[in-house]
Formats: sequence, C-alpha cells, structure tokens
Amino acid sequence: MKTNPMSQSRTIQSHLVLPPDTNHHQTIFGGKVLAYIDEIAAITAMKHAKGAVVTASIDSVDFVSSARVGDVIELDAIVSSTGRSSMEVYVRVTSMNVLTGEEKLTTESFVTMVAVDENNKPIPVKGIHPETKDEIRLFETGPARRLHRKQRMEMRY
Amino acid sequence: MKTNPMSQSRTIQSHLVLPPDTNHHQTIFGGKVLAYIDEIAAITAMKHAKGAVVTASIDSVDFVSSARVGDVIELDAIVSSTGRSSMEVYVRVTSMNVLTGEEKLTTESFVTMVAVDENNKPIPVKGIHPETKDEIRLFETGPARRLHRKQRMEMRY
Amino acid sequence: MKTNPMSQSRTIQSHLVLPPDTNHHQTIFGGKVLAYIDEIAAITAMKHAKGAVVTASIDSVDFVSSARVGDVIELDAIVSSTGRSSMEVYVRVTSMNVLTGEEKLTTESFVTMVAVDENNKPIPVKGIHPETKDEIRLFETGPARRLHRKQRMEMRY
Amino acid sequence: MKTNPMSQSRTIQSHLVLPPDTNHHQTIFGGKVLAYIDEIAAITAMKHAKGAVVTASIDSVDFVSSARVGDVIELDAIVSSTGRSSMEVYVRVTSMNVLTGEEKLTTESFVTMVAVDENNKPIPVKGIHPETKDEIRLFETGPARRLHRKQRMEMRY
Amino acid sequence: MKTNPMSQSRTIQSHLVLPPDTNHHQTIFGGKVLAYIDEIAAITAMKHAKGAVVTASIDSVDFVSSARVGDVIELDAIVSSTGRSSMEVYVRVTSMNVLTGEEKLTTESFVTMVAVDENNKPIPVKGIHPETKDEIRLFETGPARRLHRKQRMEMRY
Amino acid sequence: MKTNPMSQSRTIQSHLVLPPDTNHHQTIFGGKVLAYIDEIAAITAMKHAKGAVVTASIDSVDFVSSARVGDVIELDAIVSSTGRSSMEVYVRVTSMNVLTGEEKLTTESFVTMVAVDENNKPIPVKGIHPETKDEIRLFETGPARRLHRKQRMEMRY
Ligand SMILES: CC(C)(COP(=O)(O)OP(=O)(O)OC[C@H]1O[C@@H](n2cnc3c(N)ncnc32)[C@H](O)[C@@H]1OP(=O)(O)O)[C@@H](O)C(=O)NCCC(=O)NCCS
Ligand SMILES: CC(C)(COP(=O)(O)OP(=O)(O)OC[C@H]1O[C@@H](n2cnc3c(N)ncnc32)[C@H](O)[C@@H]1OP(=O)(O)O)[C@@H](O)C(=O)NCCC(=O)NCCS
Ligand SMILES: CC(C)(COP(=O)(O)OP(=O)(O)OC[C@H]1O[C@@H](n2cnc3c(N)ncnc32)[C@H](O)[C@@H]1OP(=O)(O)O)[C@@H](O)C(=O)NCCC(=O)NCCS
Ligand SMILES: CC(C)(COP(=O)(O)OP(=O)(O)OC[C@H]1O[C@@H](n2cnc3c(N)ncnc32)[C@H](O)[C@@H]1OP(=O)(O)O)[C@@H](O)C(=O)NCCC(=O)NCCS
Repeated sequence: MKTNPMSQSRTIQSHLVLPPDTNHHQTIFGGKVLAYIDEIAAITAMKHAKGAVVTASIDSVDFVSSARVGDVIELDAIVSSTGRSSMEVYVRVTSMNVLTGEEKLTTESFVTMVAVDENNKPIPVKGIHPETKDEIRLFETGPARRLHRKQRMEMRY
Repeated sequence: MKTNPMSQSRTIQSHLVLPPDTNHHQTIFGGKVLAYIDEIAAITAMKHAKGAVVTASIDSVDFVSSARVGDVIELDAIVSSTGRSSMEVYVRVTSMNVLTGEEKLTTESFVTMVAVDENNKPIPVKGIHPETKDEIRLFETGPARRLHRKQRMEMRY
Repeated sequence: MKTNPMSQSRTIQSHLVLPPDTNHHQTIFGGKVLAYIDEIAAITAMKHAKGAVVTASIDSVDFVSSARVGDVIELDAIVSSTGRSSMEVYVRVTSMNVLTGEEKLTTESFVTMVAVDENNKPIPVKGIHPETKDEIRLFETGPARRLHRKQRMEMRY
Repeated sequence: MKTNPMSQSRTIQSHLVLPPDTNHHQTIFGGKVLAYIDEIAAITAMKHAKGAVVTASIDSVDFVSSARVGDVIELDAIVSSTGRSSMEVYVRVTSMNVLTGEEKLTTESFVTMVAVDENNKPIPVKGIHPETKDEIRLFETGPARRLHRKQRMEMRY
Repeated sequence: MKTNPMSQSRTIQSHLVLPPDTNHHQTIFGGKVLAYIDEIAAITAMKHAKGAVVTASIDSVDFVSSARVGDVIELDAIVSSTGRSSMEVYVRVTSMNVLTGEEKLTTESFVTMVAVDENNKPIPVKGIHPETKDEIRLFETGPARRLHRKQRMEMRY
Repeated sequence: MKTNPMSQSRTIQSHLVLPPDTNHHQTIFGGKVLAYIDEIAAITAMKHAKGAVVTASIDSVDFVSSARVGDVIELDAIVSSTGRSSMEVYVRVTSMNVLTGEEKLTTESFVTMVAVDENNKPIPVKGIHPETKDEIRLFETGPARRLHRKQRMEMRY
C-alpha cells in the first residue's frame, strides 16, 4: 500500500477568544483549548484515514502561556506517525495578541486517533512519508513515542 | 504610512460539520456558514488592523453546493482591499467529502469590516500591497467592488 | 394551484443580546445577526412550503446600526416572492434600547430559500398574493430582484 | 404614575426544533422549553420595566403535548399583572407541525419577574391596563394568582 | 415487582456560573437554572426507569436567592415518589460563593418525568422504598403532592 | 497553616450524552470528555483554593472505552496533592448504560490547577490531609507524580 505525504493531512485553525470561553479573569479555559486540539486532530486524522476516527488518547499537555479575550488562538496539526489502525497527530497551539502581533506558544500535544468502521472496530490506515526537515524529525521520533505510550498503558493496568 | 503585504492577514479554518449545525436532512444551515464567514473575516481584519473591528456589510452570498454531516468545511480569507478605516475581506468556502477526498466550492463572499476604537468610532488602517498573481487580481478589482457597494447603499436610502 | 396570502408565512422573533454574542466592545457580531436572519427565513419559508428548505442565497446585507449587550433584537420576516421551488424571504431587523424604548433599523435582507425533498432535490411551492399596501410593494418589486439575482449569478461564473 | 397598555409589552418568538434540543426520541427537552419561557418572559418584562429584571418564580408548568425535530415552537408573552416591583408575565407555548400546519398547545405558564437596580435591589414599575377581552380576563384574575403565590411562599417556609 | 431503594437514583451536579449564563448584572438566568433542573431530573429518572423519559410537569419554582459569575451551583436530585409510569423527582439547588465557602438555597422543585417507549407512550416503572429519615419524609408526602397536581390539572381544563 | 481534609474538595457530575456531543457514529468526542474533565477539575480546585485557578497541565489521558448517545457520563474529582500554589486533581470518568445499569471506566486523569490572583500570578494554597484508604493511596503517590511532571517539563525545553 502506497504511503501518503505527511503534508496531505495538515490542517490549520484560527479562533478568536471570546468571553464565553474564559473564566472571570478573561483567561481561556484549558478545557476549551483541549476541545480545539481534539477537534483539529480528528479532522487531520479523518483526512488521512478517509473515514471516521475516535480519540484513543492524548499525551500530557502543559499550558506554558495563557490566552485572553480578544487574542487569536492558532492551531496547526499534522499526522506525525501511523500504526496499523492508529494515527498520531501532532498539534501545536500558539496565541497571538492582535494589538502587538506578538505570538506565544500555548502548548504542544500528541493525540492518538484510531480509524474505525461503523461498529467502532479499528480498521487499517495507510502509512505516511515525511518530506521536509520538520516532518522528518517528527516522523523519526514517532516509534519512541509509541513505545512510551505502550509502556504507560501497561503500567496502568 | 507603509503598506502591509496582503498575505500577512491570510487566515485559514477547517470545521467538521456536526449534527447540531444541520437541518433534519443533515445539510448544514446557511446561517452556520454565514457565522463562520463573519468569524474568519473578523480575525483576518483584526490581524491587519491590530485592533477591534465591526462588520459593516456582507456582499450577496450564493450557496452553490451544500455540505453534510461528516464533511469538512474549509474557509480561506485575506484582506483584499482597504479604505481609510474599512477593510474588504475575501472569503472562499469549500467543503470536502472526507471519504472521497473530493472538494467542492460552497460559496465565495466579500465582507467589509471597519476598524473601531473603544467608542465604536472608525479609526484609520494601513494599506496593503499584493504579491502573487491571485492577490493582484483581487486587489485590482477592489475599487470596482467598492464603487458598486457605494451605489447599492445610495439606491437603498 | 391556489395561492397563499403572504401574511400566512409571517414570522416574528425577539432576542436579548447577551455577552457571548458580542465582541469585547459589547457590540453584537454580524455573524450572530446573519445566523438569526437565516433561522427566521427558514421558519418563514417552511411555513409556506409545508416542508424542508435549504438556503440558496442571501442578498447583500448592510449593518446600518449596531446592537449592544442588553438591547433587544427584533426580526420580522415574510415570504415576499415565489418561483417554482424558490421562495424569497424579506427580513427586517431592528434593535431596541430597552431603557429608552428607542428602536433603530439594524438591517434589511432578502434570503432565497428552496423547498427540497428528502434527497435535497427542489420541489414546487405554491404562489402567494399580497393583501396590504406594504405587501403589495414587496410583491411587485419581486421580479426585478429575481432578475438582478440571475444576472449576478451569470456574471459570476 | 400613568399605566401602560398591556399590549405594549407583548412579545412573540418562533423557534425551529433542532436535534441538539431533543432527546434520542427526537422530542424536545422540557428544559429547553423552560429556558425559552424564561427568555421571552425576561424580554417582555424588560420592555415594560425599561431596565433589568430577575426571575422571582415560575408557576407550575404542565407539558400537555410534545414537539419534535422539525416542528416550530411558538411563544406569545404579555405582562398580565403588576405589583410594586414585580411583573407577572403570561406565556403561551404552541408547537406547529409544518407539514400539516396543525398547531397544538404545548403549555401555558405564569412567570414573575422583578425589576432590579444595579445592586439587584427591587425597584418600582408602572402599572398596566388591559384593552381587549383576552387582556381583561388575564388582568382581572391577576390578584387571585398573586394571593395564591403568596400563600405558597408562606406555606413553604 | 420489587421496589428500588430511593438512593439508587440519586444524582449530583456542580456547575461553575459562567458569563454566558448571566444577564448584564452577572446574575444567572432563571432559565439556565430551570434547564439544569430538567437535565438532572431526566438523568435521575432514567436511572430509575432504565430507559427514556419525558418531562410531564414541573411544580412552581421560587428563586429565593441568586447566583453570580464565579459561584458554583450545586444540584442534588432523587426520585421521591412513583406512580404507574410517572416518577416525581425532588431537586434541591444551592449556590456556593467559593471565596467565602458560604452556601445558600437557590430553589427546590418537584419535576414529574414519565417513562416512555419508542413511540412516546407511557410504560410502567418500578416502585421505590425510602431508607433514611429524609427519604421517608419525601416519600410519605408524595401522595399529597400527586393529588394536588391532579386537582391542578383538572381545574385547568 | 492548617490543612483541609481531601474530601472537602470532592465534586461529582453526571451528564447525559446528547447528539451534539457525538460524531456520526453517536460516540462522544474525546474533546467533550476533556472539557468536562477540565471543568470539574477547576470547580474542585476552586473549592480548595477559595478563589480563581488556571489549568497548568493535564497528564496523559487514555480513553479505554467509549460512551454513546443516551449514556450517562459520571465524573468524580478530588484534590489529590498540593504544592505551594498548585493543586493536583484526580478525575475519574465512568459511563453508564442506563438500560442495563452497566458502568464502565472511560478514563482517569490528573489535572494540575494553579491558584492565581487577579493578575494571573500564582498564590499559595492550603495543604490537604487524607482520611480514607483510597485518599491515602492517592495522597502518598502524589510526590512521585509531581517529580515525573517536573522531569517531563525539563526534558521538553
Ligand atoms: C481506541 C480503541 C478503539 C482501541 O480499541 P482496541 O480494542 O484496544 O483495539 P486495538 O488493541 O486493536 O488497538 C487499535 C489501535 O489503537 C491503539 N491504541 C489503543 N489504545 C491506545 C491508547 N490509549 N493510546 C494510543 N494508542 C492506543 C493500539 O495501539 C492500536 O494501534 P495500531 O492499530 O496502530 O497498532 C478503544 O479503546 C476505544 O473505543 N476507546 C474509546 C474511544 C473513544 O470513544 N474516545 C472518545 C472519548 S470516550
Ligand atoms: C426576587 C427577589 C429580587 C425578591 O427580593 P426580596 O428581597 O424578597 O424583595 P421583596 O420582598 O421586596 O419582593 C419584591 C417583589 O418580588 C415579589 N416576589 C418575591 N419572591 C417572589 C416569588 N417567589 N414569586 C413571586 N413574586 C415574588 C414580591 O411579592 C415583591 O413584589 P411587589 O414589589 O410587586 O410587591 C429575590 O428573592 C432574588 O434576588 N431572588 C433571586 C432571583 C434570581 O436571581 N433569579 C434567577 C435564578 S436564581
Ligand atoms: C406526559 C405525557 C406522556 C402523558 O401522556 P398521557 O397520554 O396523558 O398519559 P397518561 O394519562 O397515561 O399519563 C401517564 C402518567 O403521566 C402523568 N401525568 C400526565 N400529565 C401530567 C402532569 N402534567 N403532571 C404530572 N403528571 C402527569 C399521569 O398522572 C400518569 O401517571 P401514572 O402513570 O404514574 O399514573 C404526555 O402528556 C406528553 O407527551 N406530554 C409532553 C411531554 C414532553 O414532550 N415534554 C417535553 C417538553 S414539551
Ligand atoms: C501555570 C502558570 C500560572 C505557572 O506560572 P509560572 O510563572 O511558571 O509560575 P511558577 O514557576 O511559580 O509555578 C507555579 C506552580 O505551577 C506549577 N506548574 C507550572 N507549570 C506546570 C505544569 N506544566 N504542570 C504542572 N505544574 C506546573 C509549578 O510547579 C508551581 O507549583 P507549586 O507552586 O505548587 O510549587 C503559567 O505557566 C500559566 O499562566 N500558564 C497558562 C495557564 C492557562 O492559562 N491555562 C489555560 C489554557 S491556555
């Protein structure tokens, strides 16, 4: 089976931070950012899998800076590694202060999505191949992350 | 005052069409697409104006194809022309059937946003300059669209 | 086929402008008003068509005044012209400052809705007849607006 | 202080019943209808009080028929009685099956709203006077309902 | 048919009051509280009925104190009485000021839910038995409340 | 400074899974569950901190089973460990099939919330002490999890 270029799944989002997404200090809720991450990871994986997907896991997420009402949140996502039925999606979230144009990293995250059929049973997906330097770095470090995730699962149960 | 390259305001969005966004034939509501168009136009104009904006008008919108639950809606927006305080934003909306990868044009639209201060009074914005062939075409046809909009307003009142 | 009196489709809405519908200057988003316009146009057309409808187009919308948190937005809609399967809906939007009772026009718009069957294929609708002076004016100017829309579509493609 | 004609506060709403408002049998949630009743009662009372209001109570609500996805819910509200700072709002909810045009009563309800200042303290409101036969009936039965509500409050605590 | 212990249906909720749930005085809308009451009553009744339910009625609700942005709303619900197909659910709502830890009663309410089959026809439910003193008090006063509701229904029509 | 019993922060939630929360296979979105986890973690931490909090991080989340439309999602959260300004909140998510009463673990997660003042600067929080066997186990394993998180942060940057 032929592999897809990684860039084919790449997906970009921008969201304006609005009052309902924030606490009473006008800081965006972590849960809102997590929901955005899951949504873009699902779209990215669906483009690769050409069908429905479910979220199997999300790796730890550190919120290294915050975003406030009036900022623009930007998400950039790409399938970074594939298994038989699973796809690891790398999501990078930045926030932009529109007044100053300054951009800051909010968080980075790896989400694992699994391609499923109508009964929610895992089904195989194509592989990927990287083309740019950034893609190669993400792709080559994929197996280590998968191994780490597997150990995490085993440790837990 | 120096002008900005048009591309600096460019903004991209992808949205998964979900059941709450659709009628009982599973077709996305026009109003949902219009709300997405306004949101991306606001972000695009805010990036150019480096401040708050309000929607002054939206040109006529023809929905040339529909999107259904499970499709991905993609929006691509850029500031296409500027006045003293107003910015015309070109928004192109396509929908993608993830199963087949087929993309269709949903609609194109021009939204006029106005930069405002804290009292909602219009304030000046920078100009723009185009760099690519597509940008030049959008930019050069801007004055004709502005004129047409002016005539529309006068006819009305 | 007998025609319906225009007034039979008439539909009225009032909405309180709430913080989540507004930007950080407390001004309602254009996209929120557009979504209300599309919703009321759909209800109005469904009452006439006695079945499902989709939005074919919306004519240009000029926001001539704004509404703020605590104002009441009122929408008034009526089927203003019919074709074989399409219905043109006239929507008038005003905003009321509840403290002063002052009402201002926010915008007027014509939305074209199409009656569809379960496969989203257009199906015929009844005609209409006007009864009041205002209805007659809307009804008689309908063919000119239809022609203008046709020319707009042809110019585009 | 002069009284207002009751009709001045009258407010009308139509809502399309959408999938997110319904359970998995496609029947609208009672909670959604209650939220619509409270929203229209607030708008109605704000028009009379010319300022902010809070919900003091809602009388018992019996849902005598249901509404389903694709139906249109219609609400009709009017201030039916006033006290010093409180306003009793009568709300009538019907649902319409758009295919058949058939309308059914969903529920009727009396909501008591209280006019408040910026510190949420009750402030006086104008009185009302009825003009039509329906309005007179609502108006004249107001004191009995107020008495009943007072007894209910006292019994409780 | 064996009865269930009342406690088996008990359900608890906590919600943070957020800006979109409040008016411009930052006080939660009554409609939002009513929607929460209906949601928890539905979950509580579904746990008892082991299937779908619809809201038949809600008894009068008095909002004896308000909740504001940043407060935590807590709901506590239990099936308090059962008929053939109907279940009366007692819901108690309190609000907590997180800064001071102070809790206040917001309201108490009785919601009647009816177990239904796929055609929305009432179907029988199990009975309940109380175990604690509080449960016994709620349970023993159930028949009087049912009678009162019946009289209310008859008076109305 | 006196410590609080862990149980004082304990918070419980039940949510009915509704169509808008699910993909077109009627399976709840991972992002929805993550948003629920963040919301309950914030309430739990606010109860302990008696003030505002922000989400610093969420540890990896494995979705070991899914929930579907009509299921009830239950979340149970408690502050499990404290630092100077940070609180680790343990959240356990189960889903219940109401027809069968069967409960399944959906996921477990540790969220780190930080108490902040009005300028979003970290401020100190009280400590906690465990009382039950389960609480003791959670409490005693806290320092190891904190260390692991610290190493994760250092490795990253
Ligand atoms: C994810 C899920 C489909 C996996 O099912 P399963 O029966 O464990 O199937 P398998 O063991 O064959 O695993 C399928 C793939 O998922 C991967 N996977 C399973 N759990 C994982 C986890 N927690 N993190 C990362 N990958 C995981 C497996 O490694 C495997 O990958 P591969 O096919 O590329 O080798 C199943 O656990 C599930 O349905 N979870 C709930 C998903 C969901 O509904 N999420 C939304 C919120 S609840
Ligand atoms: C309603 C509220 C303002 C009344 O305040 P109060 O201190 O009791 O004031 P008063 O005793 O002067 O009553 C003011 C008016 O409200 C009426 N009222 C109070 N409780 C009422 C009830 N449960 N039902 C009907 N009317 C009520 C009084 O009869 C009085 O009417 P009048 O001025 O026309 O004679 C107060 O109870 C409150 O803030 N409740 C919460 C309201 C809220 O936030 N609702 C949203 C959801 S929590
Ligand atoms: C509630 C409903 C199912 C009752 O149907 P019905 O044909 O009247 O059925 P029955 O007369 O057999 O009544 C069924 C039960 O509901 C009870 N009931 C009916 N109306 C009630 C009311 N307003 N308040 C309390 N209980 C009520 C009856 O007492 C009976 O209880 P029991 O079985 O425990 O003795 C029906 O009125 C309905 O569908 N209403 C709309 C419900 C709905 O969709 N709510 C959401 C918002 S519109
Ligand atoms: C969390 C935040 C306040 C920490 O600020 P800081 O300047 O790093 O402050 P400190 O170094 O003093 O750390 C404060 C505490 O947070 C903890 N912390 C910081 N980052 C952490 C992380 N990723 N995971 C866990 N704990 C973390 C520190 O260990 C410290 O704990 P302690 O006080 O109990 O010893 C800051 O990174 C921030 O504002 N992040 C964005 C939060 C946010 O807005 N989230 C919503 C979505 S973006």
